[in-house]
Amino acid sequence: MARYTLSDDISNLISDEKWLIFQDKYDNYLNQKYETIFTLTNGYMGVRGTLEEGSNDERPGIFIAGIFDKSEAQVREIVNVQNWLGIKIYAEGNYLDLDKCHILDFKRILDMKRGILFKSILLKDGVGRVTSVEGYRFLSRCNVHRAGIKLYITPVNYSGVLSVENIIDGTVVNSKENPKERTKHLRLIENAKLDEGGCYLETATRDDDTRIGVGSIVRIYDYANKDNVVRFRRFSYLGEKSVEYLEFEASENNPVEVDKFVITYTSRDVSKDKLKEVVTRELYDFASEGMDKELLRHTAVYERLWDVADINIEGDEDADKALRFNIFHLMSSVNANDPMVSIAAKALHGEGYKGHVFWDTEIFMLPFFIYTYPQAARTLLMYRYNMLDAARENALLNGFKGAQYPWESADTGKEETPKWGVDYLGNQVRIWTGDIEHHITADIAFAVYEYYRVTDDIDFMLNYGAEIIFETARFWTSRCEYNEQFDRYEINNVIGPDEFHEHVDNNFYTNYLARWNINKGLELIDFLKEKYPSNYKTISSKICLTDKEIENWKEVMSKIYIPFDRERKLIEQFEGYFEKKDYVIDKFDENNMPIWPEGVDLARLGDTQLVKQADVVMLMVLLGEEFDEEIKRINYEYYKKRTMHKSSLGPSMYAIMGLKVGDYKDAYGSFMRSANVDLEDNQGNTKEGLHAASAGGTWQVAVYGFAGMYIDKDGLLSFTPWLPEKWKKLSYKIYWKGNLLQIIITKDNVTVKMLEGKDEELKVKINGELISIK
Amino acid sequence: MARYTLSDDISNLISDEKWLIFQDKYDNYLNQKYETIFTLTNGYMGVRGTLEEGSNDERPGIFIAGIFDKSEAQVREIVNVQNWLGIKIYAEGNYLDLDKCHILDFKRILDMKRGILFKSILLKDGVGRVTSVEGYRFLSRCNVHRAGIKLYITPVNYSGVLSVENIIDGTVVNSKENPKERTKHLRLIENAKLDEGGCYLETATRDDDTRIGVGSIVRIYDYANKDNVVRFRRFSYLGEKSVEYLEFEASENNPVEVDKFVITYTSRDVSKDKLKEVVTRELYDFASEGMDKELLRHTAVYERLWDVADINIEGDEDADKALRFNIFHLMSSVNANDPMVSIAAKALHGEGYKGHVFWDTEIFMLPFFIYTYPQAARTLLMYRYNMLDAARENALLNGFKGAQYPWESADTGKEETPKWGVDYLGNQVRIWTGDIEHHITADIAFAVYEYYRVTDDIDFMLNYGAEIIFETARFWTSRCEYNEQFDRYEINNVIGPDEFHEHVDNNFYTNYLARWNINKGLELIDFLKEKYPSNYKTISSKICLTDKEIENWKEVMSKIYIPFDRERKLIEQFEGYFEKKDYVIDKFDENNMPIWPEGVDLARLGDTQLVKQADVVMLMVLLGEEFDEEIKRINYEYYKKRTMHKSSLGPSMYAIMGLKVGDYKDAYGSFMRSANVDLEDNQGNTKEGLHAASAGGTWQVAVYGFAGMYIDKDGLLSFTPWLPEKWKKLSYKIYWKGNLLQIIITKDNVTVKMLEGKDEELKVKINGELISIK
Repeated sequence: MARYTLSDDISNLISDEKWLIFQDKYDNYLNQKYETIFTLTNGYMGVRGTLEEGSNDERPGIFIAGIFDKSEAQVREIVNVQNWLGIKIYAEGNYLDLDKCHILDFKRILDMKRGILFKSILLKDGVGRVTSVEGYRFLSRCNVHRAGIKLYITPVNYSGVLSVENIIDGTVVNSKENPKERTKHLRLIENAKLDEGGCYLETATRDDDTRIGVGSIVRIYDYANKDNVVRFRRFSYLGEKSVEYLEFEASENNPVEVDKFVITYTSRDVSKDKLKEVVTRELYDFASEGMDKELLRHTAVYERLWDVADINIEGDEDADKALRFNIFHLMSSVNANDPMVSIAAKALHGEGYKGHVFWDTEIFMLPFFIYTYPQAARTLLMYRYNMLDAARENALLNGFKGAQYPWESADTGKEETPKWGVDYLGNQVRIWTGDIEHHITADIAFAVYEYYRVTDDIDFMLNYGAEIIFETARFWTSRCEYNEQFDRYEINNVIGPDEFHEHVDNNFYTNYLARWNINKGLELIDFLKEKYPSNYKTISSKICLTDKEIENWKEVMSKIYIPFDRERKLIEQFEGYFEKKDYVIDKFDENNMPIWPEGVDLARLGDTQLVKQADVVMLMVLLGEEFDEEIKRINYEYYKKRTMHKSSLGPSMYAIMGLKVGDYKDAYGSFMRSANVDLEDNQGNTKEGLHAASAGGTWQVAVYGFAGMYIDKDGLLSFTPWLPEKWKKLSYKIYWKGNLLQIIITKDNVTVKMLEGKDEELKVKINGELISIK
Repeated sequence: MARYTLSDDISNLISDEKWLIFQDKYDNYLNQKYETIFTLTNGYMGVRGTLEEGSNDERPGIFIAGIFDKSEAQVREIVNVQNWLGIKIYAEGNYLDLDKCHILDFKRILDMKRGILFKSILLKDGVGRVTSVEGYRFLSRCNVHRAGIKLYITPVNYSGVLSVENIIDGTVVNSKENPKERTKHLRLIENAKLDEGGCYLETATRDDDTRIGVGSIVRIYDYANKDNVVRFRRFSYLGEKSVEYLEFEASENNPVEVDKFVITYTSRDVSKDKLKEVVTRELYDFASEGMDKELLRHTAVYERLWDVADINIEGDEDADKALRFNIFHLMSSVNANDPMVSIAAKALHGEGYKGHVFWDTEIFMLPFFIYTYPQAARTLLMYRYNMLDAARENALLNGFKGAQYPWESADTGKEETPKWGVDYLGNQVRIWTGDIEHHITADIAFAVYEYYRVTDDIDFMLNYGAEIIFETARFWTSRCEYNEQFDRYEINNVIGPDEFHEHVDNNFYTNYLARWNINKGLELIDFLKEKYPSNYKTISSKICLTDKEIENWKEVMSKIYIPFDRERKLIEQFEGYFEKKDYVIDKFDENNMPIWPEGVDLARLGDTQLVKQADVVMLMVLLGEEFDEEIKRINYEYYKKRTMHKSSLGPSMYAIMGLKVGDYKDAYGSFMRSANVDLEDNQGNTKEGLHAASAGGTWQVAVYGFAGMYIDKDGLLSFTPWLPEKWKKLSYKIYWKGNLLQIIITKDNVTVKMLEGKDEELKVKINGELISIK
């Protein structure tokens, strides 16, 4: 930290360098990027890294998982709730405005090990007063309703009256910078001074009257003797802002400690009429206990999580830290205790994609949780189970059977994809994904089975998972259209993962995974009938599954059309794709990103063979065991040359597949691109929120790619690693069928150790060789 | 205006140069100064000259006369009500932010003749788009509830989608920049889209539930063919902000016309339950009628007002315009139809002095109205009459009899002076003026009589004025303390006009005017008994005035102690003043303002003979006929050397007295200082609001000083003019006893013409010579 750091109280808290993400300079044009990078979340709530002082060009955001509202917006969106971060500082009556003061020193540090955001700012104001502001904030992972901010304020070259404003700001809106979309989701319920000091601001979502109650109190002490120094305190009701002004004397070079305690509850947590009471009691409990105890409990939780989730890359500090950054945010974003919420495409880090849940969660993020935090993985799948009735309604609404998951899902499980958006040229365009990007329903079934395959969680499968797989299989059977001419079943008018092509027929990814979904349903029926007949009876009776219907599943499944050029061993992304105008990417920008080939009409991308992101390749990653290496290589090479990577979901999947087919050259670059997507803002939209799918993809490249971990046809955990030149060692831990394993990979050796587990002995395959571990 | 001005529609509206106040450059540090200078007011409402676009460092303010609230503030203060000025402009989705765009041209013009504020801005945004925004706003003086803004927006070098946001912002607070005082006086009642388009935002004062309803609608036309061009309209409820977003296509160099109609009513005007209905109906009436008709009616009112109020100074354009600026704002600030409000020290131009009414109104501003707009003068005095009951309560509360007017008055007539403030050194100090600056009660009596003396409005005197004079005389009689030792009545522990000295005894100004007040009461009793015995009976019975009490008045009056050094012919400002440490001012800054003499302790100014503003001299201005020229000269010279002019009230009074005693040297400079106090911001606090007393004082220098107009001992209107070197002619109009007179003064000649009047013949005195005019 800076020169004026209070070493005992702050520096001691900060972890080793490998756990730290730095910001060394204040630049208001980068405020929003850092707000995302420095977001703290405990799964219950996400708090963007907006400065307590307030600044220009900021886009504050505090989001509570599961709190959605529509109002004048196109669709329900995650609500930007009241912002309780505000602590404005005044030196002798003058607001220390970051955008007007001379900033002598500015540093922020995200400590990923402990989930703490530190800062240290040295400011000189217009009349030469130098003030140091240092401290940290955290959002407790132990008691998710608690948040704390501690600041040490030091008048460096003067003595005088300092004052702070403790602010809870309810004027926040969504889409702040876009007047056409800007929406206020809250109305004010109460803005009040609390009896024993502090502010309380309660709001309600406008559509559903979901209440959000936030209480906050500030305590100010002399650093040296811990005496309360506040000599004047004044509460202001400022409409939707609740503000308490606190004034105190401070003398040159003597720090004053400002502790801000914050409590958040919603009517999802407690009943409306108890909300204020609960917040107030918790607030005073927290404040009287002080900040340190909660901070200790918070860091203890992080320690337990990191103990399993951390991956170490020896020999490559950049890769090591970038990967850790992705794991940190992914791991922080889940709430294993709330099965009514999932992780959004931008996690709780921003308003991008409106807080909606896409296939990103099940296909990109879930593997990380399945292997390192199975309880959370189960909770994420429980969200889908809890939305199953809504998915049934969706199917019914669209003329199908079974359960159809929405392309974008919020709190009700209904389709929340906006109908209108803006294309690359800024034109208003109809968005079709909500209508026809149907593969998500198979993606979720795939994820259910993947979870089960890794965890052996039969309880989940019997009570929830099977029902999802059956209802989605049923959806696909009804979704398929019989083509008499070819005696085949087709899935027409869809969008596959590659969204450049809309309204396509027989998308390989969709059709293949739909077939897999129906097939998995059939396998599961046989398995349950044999092993758990009474459970099967319960489920099949609940969903009215008859033997006749099962016969129909078999018929459809066996005749689903899969477009595949057998001679070229080339999979056709969808029927007719090969007839599209063929452009091959041969130029790359300074970041090694594809440049649009000359002559491409951006308004008619659907007429070309250019694709947005992995589609065929994606499927081969998911179901690697079903394709031989030659097919993988041929298709990887064909599609790689045509993939524009206009989604952050692409690079990681190409990296995994590249490593599988021996294209090591680009794998490391793709991995780093994926790992740094937010740290380097290489998609240019980090300010909108975390690229959570890319974070999950990055983990997959490390584990599925470099460590070469996969489950083979016989269900054996297998490793065929390949390490980049400078990597000395790659080590990580996973849960495998209830056992905690440690994997240590060097250039010469792969070690798999059982750290704790239910099995006495376990067989794994390393580079094709069967090994027994204990 | 700028290059892109639409000459037909804007330039034609702009008056001749002598009516115009210019701003030629945008500088955000000067925003608040120009907000005051460019305030528009119609007496009902004041609207600071904040830019429609919004900008940094602005301090918006919209004030409605008579709407006060306390909430967490120290005292009731004028409420900063919802700001309806906002029109944010977006070029192809990008907010044209004045503080981020390159400003190629910026001009604002206040047209004082018509009460219109013009602007012309040429902006280049970050990607090179140049946009011109030109137009004007006005606040109707005809229908005070109507306000209009017209903007012509022209995409100068591009074609594309433009959009505007029509905003009514209810998040406004008082003391925005001072967190210790910052107070929100409004709570939200309704924020709604109006059925036929437009926004409605209703607020209520927090203490009294006084409702303020503002409705606004925007119409957008193609300039060429007047077609409505809006293609998308979206209302947003943003908490306390009501916003309508409107989108349209605009093509290169083709202006689009944006008309914003605004209606304001309060529950002072109509009943709460009718408020929205009245606002809505008026809004649609206004919008369907269009802007031009109201603008014509508005300018017609200004024409009538200027016809009497304008003063022309030939040969000195700067003085001519600066004086006109003061008259413009003074004249605009009164509402002759509302006898429950008066003009505040900062008029309706800012939050300074909290919208409170001081002696500034009766002593500094009222003469202008008495002579040019007697109906308004009567209304201003009716405000004091309507507060008479409160003044009686004040007296009772303080242990006195009769009526005691508060030093600072708001809507209730109770004392509203804050108890605490900040001194020159920034220390918190007790403010005593509300407790002991008692002279205001005599000032008001003085003003009542002055109004009567000029207008002969016997109806006012009989029904209202006499009651004020009697009750204030009664107050003074009870306020005086009998000193047995000297057999005299004293008024101890007061503050005179010079506020450097607190808790003084027998302040000359106070004692002299108190004596005058009692004496005027006695004279009036005799007059009424003789001429209007039945009226006298009514009044004396109403206020229980007995002959015995009248005898006591006589006793007290005759023995009030007046400190006066007969040998030196020097009046002692208060008892013991001459024993204070004597500092004489001998240094002046670059603006010819006094510099603190060396050695003065700013925390102990009361121990010195330095005075803040005219005190003895002030009294001699008010009651000039009671002092001979020698006394005037001696005292003027003595106090001039000791007056620091820390109030803007001083220079004008010294100028008048200087001209009376032949000190012509500094008179012009003092006049210009007074005239330019806001235009040049020479007190450094123009941002807080208009120096309204100084504006009135400036008028007095022109008329009482240079024109040398006064009422002599025999009640004759008299003139002893003196014109500065370069002034060729000074001409103005006044009402004198119901007649409209024109006065034309040149170096050689004084002409007084009767323009219209009730008297066939009138006698006036010019340079001592009695002249008869017809």
